[in-house]
Amino acid sequence: MDEFYMKMALDLAKKGKGFTAPNPLVGAVIVKNGKVIGQGYHEEFGQAHAEVNAIASASECVSGATLYVTLEPCSHVGKTPPCSDLVVDKKIRRVVIGMGDPNPLVAGKGIERLRNKGILVSIGVLEKEIAQLNEAFIKYIVTKEPFVVMKSAMSLDGKIATVTGESQWISDAAARKRVHNLRHELSGIMVGIDTIIKDDPQLTARIPNGKNPIRIVVDSQLRIPLASVVLSQQDKAKTIVATTNRASSEKIATLTKMGIEVIVTSQRDNRVDLRELMKKLGAKGIDSILLEGGATLNFSALKEGIVDKVHVYLSPKIIGGKDAKTIVEGEGISSLENAFQLKRLNPVMVGEDILIEGYLDK
Amino acid sequence: MDEFYMKMALDLAKKGKGFTAPNPLVGAVIVKNGKVIGQGYHEEFGQAHAEVNAIASASECVSGATLYVTLEPCSHVGKTPPCSDLVVDKKIRRVVIGMGDPNPLVAGKGIERLRNKGILVSIGVLEKEIAQLNEAFIKYIVTKEPFVVMKSAMSLDGKIATVTGESQWISDAAARKRVHNLRHELSGIMVGIDTIIKDDPQLTARIPNGKNPIRIVVDSQLRIPLASVVLSQQDKAKTIVATTNRASSEKIATLTKMGIEVIVTSQRDNRVDLRELMKKLGAKGIDSILLEGGATLNFSALKEGIVDKVHVYLSPKIIGGKDAKTIVEGEGISSLENAFQLKRLNPVMVGEDILIEGYLDK
Repeated sequence: MDEFYMKMALDLAKKGKGFTAPNPLVGAVIVKNGKVIGQGYHEEFGQAHAEVNAIASASECVSGATLYVTLEPCSHVGKTPPCSDLVVDKKIRRVVIGMGDPNPLVAGKGIERLRNKGILVSIGVLEKEIAQLNEAFIKYIVTKEPFVVMKSAMSLDGKIATVTGESQWISDAAARKRVHNLRHELSGIMVGIDTIIKDDPQLTARIPNGKNPIRIVVDSQLRIPLASVVLSQQDKAKTIVATTNRASSEKIATLTKMGIEVIVTSQRDNRVDLRELMKKLGAKGIDSILLEGGATLNFSALKEGIVDKVHVYLSPKIIGGKDAKTIVEGEGISSLENAFQLKRLNPVMVGEDILIEGYLDK
Repeated sequence: MDEFYMKMALDLAKKGKGFTAPNPLVGAVIVKNGKVIGQGYHEEFGQAHAEVNAIASASECVSGATLYVTLEPCSHVGKTPPCSDLVVDKKIRRVVIGMGDPNPLVAGKGIERLRNKGILVSIGVLEKEIAQLNEAFIKYIVTKEPFVVMKSAMSLDGKIATVTGESQWISDAAARKRVHNLRHELSGIMVGIDTIIKDDPQLTARIPNGKNPIRIVVDSQLRIPLASVVLSQQDKAKTIVATTNRASSEKIATLTKMGIEVIVTSQRDNRVDLRELMKKLGAKGIDSILLEGGATLNFSALKEGIVDKVHVYLSPKIIGGKDAKTIVEGEGISSLENAFQLKRLNPVMVGEDILIEGYLDK
């Protein structure tokens, strides 16, 4: 039965997707005499934790009940008081925890606090699923750098455009919807300047109640056109432009005046130093980034080791052509033994397309 | 119960893989009083049909029994007498047929013959699975041209080699084994001359009891080195070289003297006319071909419409590079609306790789 209620808590946790960063997604269920008497989840950053919401929602007294919570209850005073104290105060008898807190500063402390008060604690129920749901948080809390998902869409023969450059979206509607959901879920979206110049995209989450990610443009020489959508439509989402000292200070001033945040990093191979950029974005609370290319930035991102996960959509088409563009270009690796290794590849059908998820094996 | 016994017959049919071409794979099971009393399959081209083997194997009299057979029993005298007559003679009471004979010349005749003799006939059990098992036969019997499977292996970003050309097999052992099985199952294997010059491959099925496919080299100018393995190791498998009248007649004579069959086709874009070649290979009884590239031949084959199915192996690697080779090159299609459309894509894990199967949507 523990798995059953934990699954319920996990499903609740998912409801917070897109709104809790840089906090984790957490769900909680309270069960008494075989009946669910309370449910809650962490709805939004800065708002009440899942346990608090579950207890507040309880239809009867929670004394003697069992609390199912996906993540270890906190033991520290943050934006809200410690949840472990509330659990003790409310005389909850048993607490079932999905996974321990991945924050090394507090891990185990909540559990200790509960046990010291005589509360029965079980841990590790649906841990794998819960860890995957919070994979961005888990990286961010430890490294203070964003979890980066590189997303690409290509034909079955690995092309993103024809030899003449025709490259309208080659995936189907179901795949597009999934990508917009991902934009909603992650904190930032990052593209190279060539994508802005060529496609002038909005980079927004076009789904009902979608939260737009912060738009990050990597532009080492500040070639960005002032009329581009990401600059002119500031009401839709914040835009950050990352550049180097090769950029003109005049253009930096112009952008700043427009309300655009400009981040200047050191140069690395004449380009924006992506590792430094990740540190700076992490310091701003950006815990996760969707990297949407193009091919040159994708290669640099892989080479600099900032990519954690890939999403590759394969459409049921073959395009061919020696000079047709592919998803990762740049100079490429020269020796196979240095290829970027992936692990845990997982293919799923999304409409007529195949989505392959995988993780960089660092 | 019909599905249960038909599944048994289907599994028997599979045992003939690689040995029955250009005949279909057929399995048969005889059931009497709820007991399997006979089993058989078509083991090899020219040998007894599945029904004959099942009846011959019967542990008791088959009179009054039910025969499960994956394909409609034949009604014509071929290399063996008509199976439908045998079924009648042996007083089988009921016949359950997986799918009707796809040969338009005889389709339905076997069933009619059985019904005319008062035998109960059911058809269409596990039809989809049986049709897939015999997909090469089904095309060949109708068109007299081989069923062509284009097989490629690439990294997750669509590359078959690094920018420096390093291209040792990038898939894992499980994927390699699967490819050798496919070589065993299909009648022919086809590559372009560049593959022979660059890799000098054996193109054999290196699995226990493997049957080697007939090797077909597409070589419009007869550049093939006389010392290449496919020419010098004739004991392993037959080799056919397809060329055009751009080839020197002297080299044709040399190859012929070596025991190599040379097929001369018309020129199409200065290359071997692949459609004409398919007709000629079909006339020789080659019902199925594994096309193993390279990238230029793959594009020509797609453009000429000779490809029926694709097998693309994706390895868990990213290679990158603007100039790294991909699986389908050539001139490429220029407008997306003319891209080669695929249908029924199906991804499966093979070891650490993902195999994507799909069919050309012609």
